[in-house]
Amino acid sequence: MNELMLPRFMSCDARMEDAEIVVFGAGFDGTVTYRPGSRFGPQAMRSEFYGLETYSPMLDRDLTEIAVCDGGDLELPFGNTGSALDMINRTVTGIVEAGKKPFMIGGEHLVTLPAFKAVQLKYPDVCLLHLDAHTDLREDYLGEQLSHSSVVRRIWEIVGDGRIWQLGIRSGLKEEFAWAGEGHTSLRPFDLSAAAEAVKSLSGKRVYLTIDLDVLDPSIMPGTGTPEPGGVSFNELQKALCSFGRLNIVAADVVELAPRLDNSGISTAVACKVMRELLLLMGKPVLRND
Amino acid sequence: MNELMLPRFMSCDARMEDAEIVVFGAGFDGTVTYRPGSRFGPQAMRSEFYGLETYSPMLDRDLTEIAVCDGGDLELPFGNTGSALDMINRTVTGIVEAGKKPFMIGGEHLVTLPAFKAVQLKYPDVCLLHLDAHTDLREDYLGEQLSHSSVVRRIWEIVGDGRIWQLGIRSGLKEEFAWAGEGHTSLRPFDLSAAAEAVKSLSGKRVYLTIDLDVLDPSIMPGTGTPEPGGVSFNELQKALCSFGRLNIVAADVVELAPRLDNSGISTAVACKVMRELLLLMGKPVLRND
Amino acid sequence: MNELMLPRFMSCDARMEDAEIVVFGAGFDGTVTYRPGSRFGPQAMRSEFYGLETYSPMLDRDLTEIAVCDGGDLELPFGNTGSALDMINRTVTGIVEAGKKPFMIGGEHLVTLPAFKAVQLKYPDVCLLHLDAHTDLREDYLGEQLSHSSVVRRIWEIVGDGRIWQLGIRSGLKEEFAWAGEGHTSLRPFDLSAAAEAVKSLSGKRVYLTIDLDVLDPSIMPGTGTPEPGGVSFNELQKALCSFGRLNIVAADVVELAPRLDNSGISTAVACKVMRELLLLMGKPVLRND
Amino acid sequence: MNELMLPRFMSCDARMEDAEIVVFGAGFDGTVTYRPGSRFGPQAMRSEFYGLETYSPMLDRDLTEIAVCDGGDLELPFGNTGSALDMINRTVTGIVEAGKKPFMIGGEHLVTLPAFKAVQLKYPDVCLLHLDAHTDLREDYLGEQLSHSSVVRRIWEIVGDGRIWQLGIRSGLKEEFAWAGEGHTSLRPFDLSAAAEAVKSLSGKRVYLTIDLDVLDPSIMPGTGTPEPGGVSFNELQKALCSFGRLNIVAADVVELAPRLDNSGISTAVACKVMRELLLLMGKPVLRND
Amino acid sequence: MNELMLPRFMSCDARMEDAEIVVFGAGFDGTVTYRPGSRFGPQAMRSEFYGLETYSPMLDRDLTEIAVCDGGDLELPFGNTGSALDMINRTVTGIVEAGKKPFMIGGEHLVTLPAFKAVQLKYPDVCLLHLDAHTDLREDYLGEQLSHSSVVRRIWEIVGDGRIWQLGIRSGLKEEFAWAGEGHTSLRPFDLSAAAEAVKSLSGKRVYLTIDLDVLDPSIMPGTGTPEPGGVSFNELQKALCSFGRLNIVAADVVELAPRLDNSGISTAVACKVMRELLLLMGKPVLRND
Amino acid sequence: MNELMLPRFMSCDARMEDAEIVVFGAGFDGTVTYRPGSRFGPQAMRSEFYGLETYSPMLDRDLTEIAVCDGGDLELPFGNTGSALDMINRTVTGIVEAGKKPFMIGGEHLVTLPAFKAVQLKYPDVCLLHLDAHTDLREDYLGEQLSHSSVVRRIWEIVGDGRIWQLGIRSGLKEEFAWAGEGHTSLRPFDLSAAAEAVKSLSGKRVYLTIDLDVLDPSIMPGTGTPEPGGVSFNELQKALCSFGRLNIVAADVVELAPRLDNSGISTAVACKVMRELLLLMGKPVLRND
Repeated sequence: MNELMLPRFMSCDARMEDAEIVVFGAGFDGTVTYRPGSRFGPQAMRSEFYGLETYSPMLDRDLTEIAVCDGGDLELPFGNTGSALDMINRTVTGIVEAGKKPFMIGGEHLVTLPAFKAVQLKYPDVCLLHLDAHTDLREDYLGEQLSHSSVVRRIWEIVGDGRIWQLGIRSGLKEEFAWAGEGHTSLRPFDLSAAAEAVKSLSGKRVYLTIDLDVLDPSIMPGTGTPEPGGVSFNELQKALCSFGRLNIVAADVVELAPRLDNSGISTAVACKVMRELLLLMGKPVLRND
Repeated sequence: MNELMLPRFMSCDARMEDAEIVVFGAGFDGTVTYRPGSRFGPQAMRSEFYGLETYSPMLDRDLTEIAVCDGGDLELPFGNTGSALDMINRTVTGIVEAGKKPFMIGGEHLVTLPAFKAVQLKYPDVCLLHLDAHTDLREDYLGEQLSHSSVVRRIWEIVGDGRIWQLGIRSGLKEEFAWAGEGHTSLRPFDLSAAAEAVKSLSGKRVYLTIDLDVLDPSIMPGTGTPEPGGVSFNELQKALCSFGRLNIVAADVVELAPRLDNSGISTAVACKVMRELLLLMGKPVLRND
Repeated sequence: MNELMLPRFMSCDARMEDAEIVVFGAGFDGTVTYRPGSRFGPQAMRSEFYGLETYSPMLDRDLTEIAVCDGGDLELPFGNTGSALDMINRTVTGIVEAGKKPFMIGGEHLVTLPAFKAVQLKYPDVCLLHLDAHTDLREDYLGEQLSHSSVVRRIWEIVGDGRIWQLGIRSGLKEEFAWAGEGHTSLRPFDLSAAAEAVKSLSGKRVYLTIDLDVLDPSIMPGTGTPEPGGVSFNELQKALCSFGRLNIVAADVVELAPRLDNSGISTAVACKVMRELLLLMGKPVLRND
Repeated sequence: MNELMLPRFMSCDARMEDAEIVVFGAGFDGTVTYRPGSRFGPQAMRSEFYGLETYSPMLDRDLTEIAVCDGGDLELPFGNTGSALDMINRTVTGIVEAGKKPFMIGGEHLVTLPAFKAVQLKYPDVCLLHLDAHTDLREDYLGEQLSHSSVVRRIWEIVGDGRIWQLGIRSGLKEEFAWAGEGHTSLRPFDLSAAAEAVKSLSGKRVYLTIDLDVLDPSIMPGTGTPEPGGVSFNELQKALCSFGRLNIVAADVVELAPRLDNSGISTAVACKVMRELLLLMGKPVLRND
Repeated sequence: MNELMLPRFMSCDARMEDAEIVVFGAGFDGTVTYRPGSRFGPQAMRSEFYGLETYSPMLDRDLTEIAVCDGGDLELPFGNTGSALDMINRTVTGIVEAGKKPFMIGGEHLVTLPAFKAVQLKYPDVCLLHLDAHTDLREDYLGEQLSHSSVVRRIWEIVGDGRIWQLGIRSGLKEEFAWAGEGHTSLRPFDLSAAAEAVKSLSGKRVYLTIDLDVLDPSIMPGTGTPEPGGVSFNELQKALCSFGRLNIVAADVVELAPRLDNSGISTAVACKVMRELLLLMGKPVLRND
Repeated sequence: MNELMLPRFMSCDARMEDAEIVVFGAGFDGTVTYRPGSRFGPQAMRSEFYGLETYSPMLDRDLTEIAVCDGGDLELPFGNTGSALDMINRTVTGIVEAGKKPFMIGGEHLVTLPAFKAVQLKYPDVCLLHLDAHTDLREDYLGEQLSHSSVVRRIWEIVGDGRIWQLGIRSGLKEEFAWAGEGHTSLRPFDLSAAAEAVKSLSGKRVYLTIDLDVLDPSIMPGTGTPEPGGVSFNELQKALCSFGRLNIVAADVVELAPRLDNSGISTAVACKVMRELLLLMGKPVLRND
């Protein structure tokens, strides 16, 4: 019965011990107040990933040339934010301790916090490169410190000034923009035109890249919890990603796909293509025999 | 500019001090692991309630004859289950202390716990009448004690044996059915044919009535988080509700409408009609001048 | 190029002069305040009708045995209720003057008014048999006399007491039920159990049959403007229709399908099957050579 | 990383060699002319199956007590009906040769043909028990012999008269009903009231049970290619299934779920519950240690 | 119970007497022939507005700094176009007579006619600045003069040549473009590149700004009645709006959002952001104490 | 009854013998493995085409000025790819033999093969101009040679090197790009910037123009089987089409609209506008009297 198959990210079929990159899903959306649904992100991407080709004509690379292990999806407890974040933290710790690069699929943006913590424990000097429509710099949200609107503020509390780049930001409180403007983060608003500047600044450093898919315009990414009109096109994002090819990305995540908000499925197709391009940029081609 | 209006439950226009019943929304769904969305229940019912008539030909009563205050919707913090439940508890406490009957619109079923606690503090002998597809008797769910699958078990911990009736139940763990069968609750499975038995048993007692709308068959209530085929028809539910007219219902709730899972809107229409019939059964006709 | 086809009601291919029944669409929904969309009823039924078989095992008759002409769909002006109703009136007048039976597909229920008027001009003693969830007996709606909630009241103004049967009614103002109860119409609420009584009463008379599809339960007819829980099942409706086979139905309509409110398409399938069964009941089998 | 999981039918975790029943998906819908989409049936059921409990209170049995292997989903070539059917045939042949009971999830109804052929080769005297809204007895469809509307006719060509029971049928050509009426199959139309008669007749024989989910009323199963109003309720189906518990079912399939036609997801929930009940009826409880 | 809230446009909480701008909804779509649904525009925007921040980083202003009163939504009679337009006219008259700036949310574009009339009575020299995909210059539509396709023609009949600017137009009859080309209106087709020219021409004059949201490309505004491919991006619109900051806008409206045509909700998000930016451009910052 | 109408492509009302162009639908999607639904393309375009104006302000031409015959939609057998393709081939042969220009509406891209064959038989030197996101150059797909992913390869087998231009391509196997790069086709990836080059090269030759609508970005064309992010905007496509006005286009098709994947309807609106612009570019203005 060798014709049978199980849902798995296409071409992500390396064994853990052979892999350079380990992909896993963290479908948590417990702190989302507005429109939930990013919990279904990993599942949807698994179902639709095979609609893509493994080959990227833009990068002239092929997923079959790199070693990616599919670690499956975490089963996270809803209603207990602390436990869910702990589970993510343990998973990423396991991956980086094994010398692999974690590639996490959200879930809401708060999942980046425990993943970043695990990476930072291993690589204390790691920097954050953050693409998003929203600042995510709130002190708290309705009194809660663990919120998707506060995730970058929490990370700043770990790494301090000068270690965070924020691109594409076009929404936030007046106070958040002011706080960033005091030099705590390098925030370049509205689009990705500062990508080259960021790459230059981060050159030679270890980088954690986090992509909130709502950095894209809602026309191409309607399936997200907090759509913010005025974002970048897919081609603008892809161009920026290409420029990140020169960075030393040790960990990455793609978050905030809420697939059921978009019946047409294009948001999931976008997320899958972003994932493919990122994997191709992070992975080193290897000889494989399949 | 007297032609202007704001969304409000139709005919629920008594002032707090004049009201017999106080309606409010508690759109919390933070512990739902499967399909979220009951957070949108109150909002959807507000938008659609005016599609109903105020008059019930089945009961031959009219909403305009009873005194209901619309208390609005609670703004609840997601990601912090404890805070959300506290806020509901304080709200219901305020209503029962003022001598009014609370009528809560969920939200997931866990919202019943803090509401029941507040009612039980005021009326220590109150009984629970529970209509649902699911037992909701788990000790915990993935280690969490505060879960919508455990809400009736938590209430049993407060009131003990002999105070809980469960009707329409058709899904649960083997252990839950066995535990109920030991006499902890009066569980009558599959349909509402035991309604008369329950009414007889609860006659003369104070009753908290909680209706999980998934007690209805998914054909008529598709918009709910955990649809369970094999439920009762709307007419069967309405007949049971009519029989509850003889009970002393001091508080009620209607939970688990997840309106965005049903684009056709019939689930919201059903929830609104259940709410109208219940209000008419709970309220005493008064002279009004509008 | 004889493989080409155009959308047409399946098997409704008689020429006007040869037809016994003439089908046409009147997709007007201009007075609907709540959820519009019955304007798309005829178009949707044309697209989906071919999903049905021509043969009814319940009736043991076949559409290919009767002579039905497809008159197409009226193009009605929105924003001018009077003009739209006039156009419908002229169309039905043309059909009855030619000695044919009109079969109209709505549109909202108000379209029945001009159609009935045309039929009544030809057959002054015609009675109305009305299946609906709603009374439709209002004097006016927000001051407007031409409203889908007033259509039966307007017809009563033409025919007077004793000529209108209303079945399945389960929603309306208290005053409407009271007014009907004074003997103006024969209103039998909630279900179709009085169908036999109606058939007996209408036996030997000319009948205009109007079916508001919301007489069905919303579980089987979610695609309608004002869904009212507690309706009849499809089998109950079909049984009643069978009993109408003994009546002298000179005109009929099926109204209030709003197909875009039901993405699944089952509402349109129901409307098409109701239409097929009705055509089979109204038509006399003829020899045909196709 | 033992918290990770991959989509698999809940509790279907026996190894092939230890299993009594082998479940697999055959998502082929290539001959569907009307509304495609049953190709997505197996995938949708895998995603949603975990919304169910493993325990059936109706049967008082638990999936954890029987040995089911999840064989995954076949990857079938579209555009070449013959190849797809061959692949299914080889798969079922492998299962029955290993002494296991195949449980196939469609796909359109044509997938039953190659599966039945494989079973019949092993058990030449096997009978077919067929639940459906449609006769499926056409000689051909637009000239094609391999069509979902002809599948039972093709099976009759293999087994001949007296070996096929058809229940719930309410749609077909006049000729099909007439042909069945000549005694070729035992067709009992409209509902499942003849289930007891069928069980009596099939008692002691090997049975292949095929369930076209459109035997259910479209109110509870809107997500199917050819919805036919007037079907049975879920409870009526469940009652019939219970009565089949006395049969010797050597193979089964559940076909025609088209999940994307039903955004609410209830059709998939129904299909999963039918599958659970059937597995519990077909499997013998075994001691298991997990 | 101060945690309770009612749906209200975020931060639009000034009292009528203190307000500079009065927002109200006019959800009329009675003359729409193609796809209705703009009647639900105001309601949807109320539900979703709180997904936005009050602060605009593009304008560096905050809604909390200006005085806006939420006047609620008009309840309009369907089926009687004249009455509905009268009600809008009276409402706007009340607002301008009180010295406030009306900000109307449609509804179809015809609602602009009675609003403009009321403003023009107060300010006889007011000019119209019109952003749209469609000319809206028809003499009549199917014989009706009061139609959303004729609204600008009707306004021209009031103000005459030289007082109307039309930007972004890309659809209409040949005659309409020809008529505009005779100098009756300043029509600049296809995009908003002529915004600077319009601003220069209108400088120092009172302006009524009407934005038909279908001026945007359907990719970012799918939820509208008559989507016309080839429109401007959100950023292009926002840039034009910024340039309008130098105009003396005495009244404004945003029309033709039909939210239920776009399940993803991005159209409503776009409409809300357009509304926020416009309010910030029209309002003068004031000291407030909340 | 001259107010009646039947669905027909607006203004495509010439008789066959008077027409310059013959439009017909070929709704076949039998080889689609991923997401079917282009079978519904022609039907959806018929329903929505009247939402467009007949006049194109970009081209300053009007559909009423050219002679187009609407040939209806082919009824194609599913499950038998060969028969379906034959039927299309015969239809196009009939059109070109009559000296008319065929304009086909898909369906999946494989329908281009039999249509091109028929045109090439008449005009042996015809070239292919191919706009698409995908290469469509596979030798086979899962062993099948007749697949929508192989259609251009099959056409190349007929015409050989130097006769095929491919624009907008951004997805395919590495081998496909390599094979094209050997000079078999003129493939210009990613966008339409090479349109001028193609026009120059094809000048003076007969051209078959095939437009796979997924050449557009999924933001504006979500309703297609295999959406590929990073495509061109509608304005970029329209500009390219304008430049094709100088070519001698003898046949054209527009394929891969899958309307039910896009509930908002914008994909169908885009397809209709592409069709209108193409018809206006292909047709010669004639005097007409209607």
